[in-house]
Amino acid sequence: MTTLRSTLDFLLYDWLQAETLNARERFADHSRETFDAVLDTCERIAREKYAPFNRTVDAQEPQFDGEKVILPQATKDAYDAYAGSGMLSAAQDYGIGGMQLPYTVDAAANAFFAVASISISSNLLSTGNANLLMVHGTDLQKQVFALNEFSGRFSGTMCLSEPQAGSSLSDVATRAVPDGEGHESDPLGARYRLTGNKMWISSGEHELSENIVHLVLAKIPGADGKLVAGTRGISLFIVPKKLVDTEGNLTGVRNDVALAGLNHKLGWRGTTNTLLNFGEGKYPVQGRAGAVGYLVGQPGKGLACMFHMMNEARIGIGMAATMLGLAGYYASLDYAKNRPQGRPTGAGGKDAAQPQVRIIEHADVKRMLLAQKSYCEGALALNLYCARLVDEQHTGQLEAADDARLLLEVLTPIAKSWPSEFCLEANSLAIQIHGGYGYTRDFPVEQYWRDNRLNMIHEGTHGIQAADLLGRKVLMENGKGLQLLAARMQATMARAAAVPELAAYVAALGDALQQVAAATQAAWATGNPTEALANAVPYMQAFGHTVLAWVWLDVALATLRLDVTLSVAANAGRMGAARYFYHYELPKVGAWLKVVNARDMTCASLAEEAF
Amino acid sequence: MTTLRSTLDFLLYDWLQAETLNARERFADHSRETFDAVLDTCERIAREKYAPFNRTVDAQEPQFDGEKVILPQATKDAYDAYAGSGMLSAAQDYGIGGMQLPYTVDAAANAFFAVASISISSNLLSTGNANLLMVHGTDLQKQVFALNEFSGRFSGTMCLSEPQAGSSLSDVATRAVPDGEGHESDPLGARYRLTGNKMWISSGEHELSENIVHLVLAKIPGADGKLVAGTRGISLFIVPKKLVDTEGNLTGVRNDVALAGLNHKLGWRGTTNTLLNFGEGKYPVQGRAGAVGYLVGQPGKGLACMFHMMNEARIGIGMAATMLGLAGYYASLDYAKNRPQGRPTGAGGKDAAQPQVRIIEHADVKRMLLAQKSYCEGALALNLYCARLVDEQHTGQLEAADDARLLLEVLTPIAKSWPSEFCLEANSLAIQIHGGYGYTRDFPVEQYWRDNRLNMIHEGTHGIQAADLLGRKVLMENGKGLQLLAARMQATMARAAAVPELAAYVAALGDALQQVAAATQAAWATGNPTEALANAVPYMQAFGHTVLAWVWLDVALATLRLDVTLSVAANAGRMGAARYFYHYELPKVGAWLKVVNARDMTCASLAEEAF
Repeated sequence: MTTLRSTLDFLLYDWLQAETLNARERFADHSRETFDAVLDTCERIAREKYAPFNRTVDAQEPQFDGEKVILPQATKDAYDAYAGSGMLSAAQDYGIGGMQLPYTVDAAANAFFAVASISISSNLLSTGNANLLMVHGTDLQKQVFALNEFSGRFSGTMCLSEPQAGSSLSDVATRAVPDGEGHESDPLGARYRLTGNKMWISSGEHELSENIVHLVLAKIPGADGKLVAGTRGISLFIVPKKLVDTEGNLTGVRNDVALAGLNHKLGWRGTTNTLLNFGEGKYPVQGRAGAVGYLVGQPGKGLACMFHMMNEARIGIGMAATMLGLAGYYASLDYAKNRPQGRPTGAGGKDAAQPQVRIIEHADVKRMLLAQKSYCEGALALNLYCARLVDEQHTGQLEAADDARLLLEVLTPIAKSWPSEFCLEANSLAIQIHGGYGYTRDFPVEQYWRDNRLNMIHEGTHGIQAADLLGRKVLMENGKGLQLLAARMQATMARAAAVPELAAYVAALGDALQQVAAATQAAWATGNPTEALANAVPYMQAFGHTVLAWVWLDVALATLRLDVTLSVAANAGRMGAARYFYHYELPKVGAWLKVVNARDMTCASLAEEAF
Repeated sequence: MTTLRSTLDFLLYDWLQAETLNARERFADHSRETFDAVLDTCERIAREKYAPFNRTVDAQEPQFDGEKVILPQATKDAYDAYAGSGMLSAAQDYGIGGMQLPYTVDAAANAFFAVASISISSNLLSTGNANLLMVHGTDLQKQVFALNEFSGRFSGTMCLSEPQAGSSLSDVATRAVPDGEGHESDPLGARYRLTGNKMWISSGEHELSENIVHLVLAKIPGADGKLVAGTRGISLFIVPKKLVDTEGNLTGVRNDVALAGLNHKLGWRGTTNTLLNFGEGKYPVQGRAGAVGYLVGQPGKGLACMFHMMNEARIGIGMAATMLGLAGYYASLDYAKNRPQGRPTGAGGKDAAQPQVRIIEHADVKRMLLAQKSYCEGALALNLYCARLVDEQHTGQLEAADDARLLLEVLTPIAKSWPSEFCLEANSLAIQIHGGYGYTRDFPVEQYWRDNRLNMIHEGTHGIQAADLLGRKVLMENGKGLQLLAARMQATMARAAAVPELAAYVAALGDALQQVAAATQAAWATGNPTEALANAVPYMQAFGHTVLAWVWLDVALATLRLDVTLSVAANAGRMGAARYFYHYELPKVGAWLKVVNARDMTCASLAEEAF
């Protein structure tokens, strides 16, 4: 049986050749041994502090007693163990206490926590928050806020959505006004007072860390007191839950950020999700209205800064969806190998006098297992490929780095959306394999399915990802991102063309790529966004399946390169999963693209009263 | 906005022409007025006693205090209101207190309860249980058990699965031995003592009714004391929770049926689901081991009797899945019409100075609404078509009745499986439309999705339905069922061919039908069940989509027959939903059938250790 560790080892070392990164100056101190040590540590902490409590944090969801949010002790223990491992700053410079670990390895190591318990963990946002400040913050903001997040002393959030506007950021109504005289010269950044409400804030309130660093989008009113319409008026602020001095010490003053309520969710219940009121007067600071916030970057440029964090968060969500999918795969594989029931449909019919077989011997159970493996290991490969692009963007040669940046732009909507949809489907198959037991709370698979359902929504819905892909990413820089991606696919196909057993896949992938390219053209043939984007989601589904087919072809090539006498079973599994994807999945591309090619307005043009 | 009532009116009267049933002797006293009165009553009771408590029964799931099962008061109130309405026996003869209502109308009327709260209702099994006894029971069994179920005084269960065997009925291990001297002459039926455990028993224990009538599959040991292997050894027994006399009065003696535990489920929580121990000695009867059971029908013929009930239950599950889908559709349509957020993607780009629009104005939201409408109204039409076949089977002319029987055999796996899969997908889209609110418990859609996830499993999993379809139903009686279905489709196509705007659908349906027929041949080309059934589920998905396309074409024809000046919007909606199905869904058929045609063994032949 393959394990997550053996799968990661193959993808990291045999496929992505992560060791070659050590030739780069930034990673020169690293080796396979140091990478493995990180993987070992994370695997151990996840096994000890995360996995045993995954059901606990689902059953004992966060409660607000009016004063504070109550979480199970296990959540605090997991938080402390994670922070203690140094993983919050693993990718950071030595100079600030980091390990200068490649992001590829960092992402792989974090997979152990996600597969063990996605919702006990709320570290993703702290790291993303701190990373944003490392790029856009002042030196003191880095020192006071980011570094304390990397140590785990503080934790972080991102506050974008508002109750009245959801994902529509141009309608952000949180106001930020200058905080009196000298506000512009506060050493922590120009000081403002914020008032407004933020919805869907993960880890917005808890007692896990000494302080919470909210990164908040708000608008600074113009001279007429009005907010600028649209996203151009948005600025970004650091709003700490508790005020700090320039050394990062708590001053003892609570900032005016109040928990207005907890969202009670279908899944992912271990992570507190909040509605926060900023500056409503519950904790007035110096007797004046408004929560104290410090400007990050330039006024009116807040969204650009925040996108830095959002892109990271989106790839993080793709990884979360993937690991939930794999968790279900492993659980259902284990069940299928141990549950006896029924007899195989043989050429001679069923013989009831024979003993029952384990359900993994039924063809349909194998189909459901292989579908899960193909979806989830494929998604894992894609996510690690994206992580590898991040390393390339940060440490590669000029042109390679720029290519990586652009490829990431195009692949981010896929890395986020595809696992959210298909690893959720994998979780449904894991339930199905369990039969009636699958829908009871005695087995873990129903929770994975519930947890995973959030991923198609948070950090940008499927619809938003699709509009981003077809409306922006494949067009930007004259379509260069799409061309770069096609070139990578062509390169894989060229290598695979020399391998007889992959010839059919090369043809199928070439055809799918051609179909996607043609559909991109057809969608925009009239230049009318209403028509082009009417079927953006089916376009994204077809695009995603094509990307995954490419990933599987490339993985198959790497598999065939291996010494065949090693890992015979694991190699057969990977080749089987690739074959599954080409036989069962890739043929769906044509059906999705049909409506894109036709700029089909069946849905968009139906009158409201006809529904 | 279309309502469930207006949709049912169209399907019943304009499409299925239910009024023509009144020409038949059994239904001669009925008229549209009497049908409408039944629909009115059910709609009212569902609105008052079911809908307001759907969340209540989810949040307060059944608890076992060691003595009895505790349910919310709302469940008892709903049960009493339903029983009081006479709906339990609506389809029965006047002579036993029934209404002689066509099953078509009965099914439509029950839709109101299902859409309001699927899990508060547990009437489906009582009716099915009593119906079975009306066909296979003795006169006294009908009088004592069935009639008391029709009145609501008793309720009923079906006890098939066992913990060690799940769906594998040939492995039933519950034993039934003759209950002493004179056992064969008990007026209630030959008397046996049963010992064994039954799992997944819905409504297996509660206080809603005076008594519970369990219908139990068990095996009578041979002279050697051994159970016959396989399904041939299975007999059927009535095992009442409390013993009764020949008048149906409770004798005061509790039978030895003990609740061993409740299953705590992902959804459908309002309905108690139990593990029952028969004859374990907790409630010994006359000091001897075993639960008292009365034989129904002939020894060894139990499964054939039970299939009577199972087929009804399967169509009932299809209807339940459909109504959960529609409940989500209505909820998300309402949300989409009222939630302002964002601006449409217009040719001129987004203008943030304009006010936000309601989300139904976004093309992708319309796509998700129309997909739901197409899935769920299509599934409703299919289920009512099946109900109409039941009426034909029972009251039609000899040949028509036999055709209806055989069509039902072929369509039952589709009527059960298709809504279970695609109305679940509809529920996921309903969540998606709600954005973050969709995964909170403040809105009803997450519960619909959870409730619906059971339907692909209970009453025979997807895999079992698919094996039944491709392994039995399309082959039986020399493939006559499939031929009959194809002829019905051809008849619809012939009528539609005369309508220019339907010409493209006729071609597409003809093509799909041809593909399904060819795949059926190809699957069985080698005559090897292992190869034929390796991809039975993709076959069933393609088969189901073809059936639904046919249903939509037939519905479109009926829509176009209507006076165009009436229901302009509703007609446009139906034509839009049909178009959606043909443009977005039917093209998927080819991808599913590819592996069936190839008898693809990618999954089935992968070695266990490769997973």
